[in-house]
Amino acid sequence: MAAQNLRTPGPTPLPPSVREALARDMVNHRGPEFAALLRECVDGLKWAYQVAEHDVVILTTSGTGGLESLVANTLSPGEHLLVASIGNFGERMGQIGRVFGAHVTQLDVEPGHALDPEMIVDTLRADPDIQTVFFTHNETSTGVLNPLRDLAAAVRALRPDALILVDGISSVISVPIEPEAWGCDVVVAGSQKGWMAPPGLAFVSISPRAWQRQARSTLPKFYFDWQLARRSADSGETPWTPAVSLFYALQAGLRLMRAEGLEQIFARHERLAQYTRDGLADLQVRLFADPRFASPTVTTAWLPDGVNGKALLTALDERHGVVLAGGQGNLSGKIFRIGHMGWVEQAELDAVLHALQVELNSSRATSVAAR
Amino acid sequence: MAAQNLRTPGPTPLPPSVREALARDMVNHRGPEFAALLRECVDGLKWAYQVAEHDVVILTTSGTGGLESLVANTLSPGEHLLVASIGNFGERMGQIGRVFGAHVTQLDVEPGHALDPEMIVDTLRADPDIQTVFFTHNETSTGVLNPLRDLAAAVRALRPDALILVDGISSVISVPIEPEAWGCDVVVAGSQKGWMAPPGLAFVSISPRAWQRQARSTLPKFYFDWQLARRSADSGETPWTPAVSLFYALQAGLRLMRAEGLEQIFARHERLAQYTRDGLADLQVRLFADPRFASPTVTTAWLPDGVNGKALLTALDERHGVVLAGGQGNLSGKIFRIGHMGWVEQAELDAVLHALQVELNSSRATSVAAR
Repeated sequence: MAAQNLRTPGPTPLPPSVREALARDMVNHRGPEFAALLRECVDGLKWAYQVAEHDVVILTTSGTGGLESLVANTLSPGEHLLVASIGNFGERMGQIGRVFGAHVTQLDVEPGHALDPEMIVDTLRADPDIQTVFFTHNETSTGVLNPLRDLAAAVRALRPDALILVDGISSVISVPIEPEAWGCDVVVAGSQKGWMAPPGLAFVSISPRAWQRQARSTLPKFYFDWQLARRSADSGETPWTPAVSLFYALQAGLRLMRAEGLEQIFARHERLAQYTRDGLADLQVRLFADPRFASPTVTTAWLPDGVNGKALLTALDERHGVVLAGGQGNLSGKIFRIGHMGWVEQAELDAVLHALQVELNSSRATSVAAR
Repeated sequence: MAAQNLRTPGPTPLPPSVREALARDMVNHRGPEFAALLRECVDGLKWAYQVAEHDVVILTTSGTGGLESLVANTLSPGEHLLVASIGNFGERMGQIGRVFGAHVTQLDVEPGHALDPEMIVDTLRADPDIQTVFFTHNETSTGVLNPLRDLAAAVRALRPDALILVDGISSVISVPIEPEAWGCDVVVAGSQKGWMAPPGLAFVSISPRAWQRQARSTLPKFYFDWQLARRSADSGETPWTPAVSLFYALQAGLRLMRAEGLEQIFARHERLAQYTRDGLADLQVRLFADPRFASPTVTTAWLPDGVNGKALLTALDERHGVVLAGGQGNLSGKIFRIGHMGWVEQAELDAVLHALQVELNSSRATSVAAR
């Protein structure tokens, strides 16, 4: 285990081989070494995304830039976009859509809950102009995994040609997702989540239907233009100078993951998530997310009564080297979050649970004493 | 010297301390370690940019994303933008402006030449609606350094409130530039050029005048929104997950550069550029750029008659480990380029010049034999 037990839901700790890869010197990004690197990364991503027909492009940007690319590449001004939000990152997609001039209908679900396909059907029926629907697969801010397959099927049944856009930033590679089989046209992911790599790269899988839409979309796009990225990738390049070091890291992370196997990775995440939830329950900590949809990559829990979130996180960090995340937006000061995606094993979660036990006992003792 | 003598005009080789920094494990990007890292990087950038009043923001993107941020943050649809292009990267800025809906007037100068302030004055006189002017400081594709101070002064004399935008991607930190003293409102730079760091970060200096313009600009901006970046930086964060590893590298590179000193860095670049030009002249290679404006960071030269550019670059790489760049666009197959910015000393250029001598003699011998 590293000196610090970084258990935020991204960035995630880096395995030794990834750190070694990061330390490699530069190469010409228009030369044969980078072309081979890019090809191996794209192949690995297609393996992780489980796609054959869909393309995957790599953008030098963080996840939010990836989300922006969804809007800029698929929509034209005034087109109707349904953003089905279950938390902070769904909300962000709504903001981007509005900033770029889409007509956004935003569904908001109570934080901690998943989307119900019936809600989607009702919303689509009410607006026949919605031809683009956005879902968050795994909402990092609330620790909820949406039933994406059912949601996509509900859209597809009612509106066969609609474009389905998915934020898979904290799900792809950690949680089963099959964009082709499920009919998800576009799925964005981010290197700092389950990929055992640092932040700075976003990945986007793109269906033939999405390419057709891209060709006629008129929102302004240049840096994030998927078409330019695909065309350059065909000749082993990126249109703009890529973050070469992060490609080295991605390559090293993908090699580790391919050695582990996709099913094994999914099972590990599911097992460690259950282990975390069970451990929190043993500590009498109340889980935040609806248990039927609890995320395999991030666990959220209510702060116990009388426990100050900021003080708890600081104590965990300073006394135990355990770094957790607080709540975002309205959930700030109410919940805390434990990330368990990417390069993580049970030992790290044992350390988290023990540190929590010590600090919560200490807080509760203080809280009782103060009464 | 590293195994490969990477002499493209970016990415540039990484010093050992930068490579060590890249190998560091992740930290929470919303925690105190990252806040300290960000503050040191911003302080170092302000030192390199020689600015006190202007802000500097850091974006996780490559240089082209930085250029896009200039358009998105300063313009509104239909506003007139003068793009004074002297090569491929000026041309790119014109493209971005058109894609985003600005009314672009593009001046094109014959490749290899610099801009003449008189041309700018004439163009501005012809269109009183131009309130935004873009210059490339150092054109990486042609190896030309524009007389930026004179150009900015010419604009300012005629149109005092105009916004002056500068592509300083291959100039800032390697070549003297004083955004405040020269009246350059916005200057963008890229981490893979003179900064001794890998690609993936763009830096933007922003004047008070540019902030006023930003507040009323209506082109769509979200990921590249400077205002969000500045607001987050005030609390030691970035609005979106930053490429943490690249910030480590930037910090390490800045420490080396501060130890060397700004004047010393400028002098080293000027000296090595002259050394390269002299060495090429000794080899009877004709320089491409107008000698009055030859770049301190990249030297361009005509391929000698009968020499195939691709074959020359391949021979240099395979037989000598020397990696140079060819021409871009219309200059492909006509010129070659030698980068000498960032972490570079005379020994690397001696190796380039010797390798060139060997391979050019060999090509010329073949060329003579073939007659």
